[in-house]
Amino acid sequence: MQNTATSDGRRLRGDESRRAVLRLAVDRASLTGLDGLTIGGLASELGVSKSNVATLFGSKLELQLATIEAARAIFIDTVTTPALARPRGLQRLIALIELWLDYSEGRVFAGGCFFRAVGADAASKDDAARDRLAQIDAEWLAFVTRAVREAGAELPGLSGGTDAAEVLAFEIGSMLEAANSMSLLHRTSRGYALARSSIRERLIALGAPPDITLSPGSAAPLSKAE
Amino acid sequence: MQNTATSDGRRLRGDESRRAVLRLAVDRASLTGLDGLTIGGLASELGVSKSNVATLFGSKLELQLATIEAARAIFIDTVTTPALARPRGLQRLIALIELWLDYSEGRVFAGGCFFRAVGADAASKDDAARDRLAQIDAEWLAFVTRAVREAGAELPGLSGGTDAAEVLAFEIGSMLEAANSMSLLHRTSRGYALARSSIRERLIALGAPPDITLSPGSAAPLSKAE
Repeated sequence: MQNTATSDGRRLRGDESRRAVLRLAVDRASLTGLDGLTIGGLASELGVSKSNVATLFGSKLELQLATIEAARAIFIDTVTTPALARPRGLQRLIALIELWLDYSEGRVFAGGCFFRAVGADAASKDDAARDRLAQIDAEWLAFVTRAVREAGAELPGLSGGTDAAEVLAFEIGSMLEAANSMSLLHRTSRGYALARSSIRERLIALGAPPDITLSPGSAAPLSKAE
Repeated sequence: MQNTATSDGRRLRGDESRRAVLRLAVDRASLTGLDGLTIGGLASELGVSKSNVATLFGSKLELQLATIEAARAIFIDTVTTPALARPRGLQRLIALIELWLDYSEGRVFAGGCFFRAVGADAASKDDAARDRLAQIDAEWLAFVTRAVREAGAELPGLSGGTDAAEVLAFEIGSMLEAANSMSLLHRTSRGYALARSSIRERLIALGAPPDITLSPGSAAPLSKAE
């Protein structure tokens, strides 16, 4: 029993340390990219020894991969899970858009959307981190496309063509990303206002009720309650 | 005369070296971000001594700023100048979109659009490089907005509201950027096809003639001839 307890205690402290390192790592990576992450740098910011952190993550690539998974888990908790809690259809699609904009604007990660922040540099690599980021991006595009498709009955203007949902998902995703990068570079909220206005007009043009709104924070209370 | 000639010769060699360093620097920065640029790294890739390059650029920030200006000059030559050579109005707007997509897809910079590639990391800084990138981005948004406004008479569906041109410019810019990042991360041309199809449909919905086309390379011959 003593041995088990000690072993559990050690694992627990190991898990807690891992979480503390990764919570810092996702923020750092969102500011500087994955290449900016170093075991020594994180250890020094946390005030622990480099060997402490090195024990948790064997290599820089392992640290990068764990950071990506930690960011994905936060994204899922913040955006996709609350959206899935909404009724399928236009309501869920609108909630998804609001949740994403709130996630970016609320700086869940210090550098805005984690995946946009690390994607630019990682795209030119040929390693497991890049492959994983491409998978996660494909997963996200498929998620938005599914949400659009499920709202199809409430968007009669959306053509029945096989590509129509993918095209609208691409448009929505593009505007979300552009709002994120515009706010980071110009340090204003203008991009968010433009994205909200554009996407709303687009949905109304496709037949959504003209009284739909896309407003900051409007998706949050329900997602918090759930 | 001898002195002058020598002095001119030296300056010429200096200018040529500067150009060679910057041509490499814009490609490197488009792959790794501005932080990845080092005087030593560029010297070693060019097979010259570090002091050779250090003489041309006093500091890392000076190198970064010169790299940004070199990239801006290439962008202007490749995208905005050829677009300005087209007749003002819808023709110019369409040429601008085609030229931008060709610029990204043709990898004028090894890492796709230079400004998207370096923007993510630079946005979180507080230095002259960041400020300059924000200025250049504002310049680009204003350029697209003006092109949209000048096409207004041919886009009767574009509302006369003060924001309408800015909103459409934001939508077009968003899709161009998304096509660029999708192609870099997924290494397919799907994003370009989606952007061409989306923007074309959007312009037609606003009243552009239904036979307008947005196709790869279609803007190139005229811009080359000029």
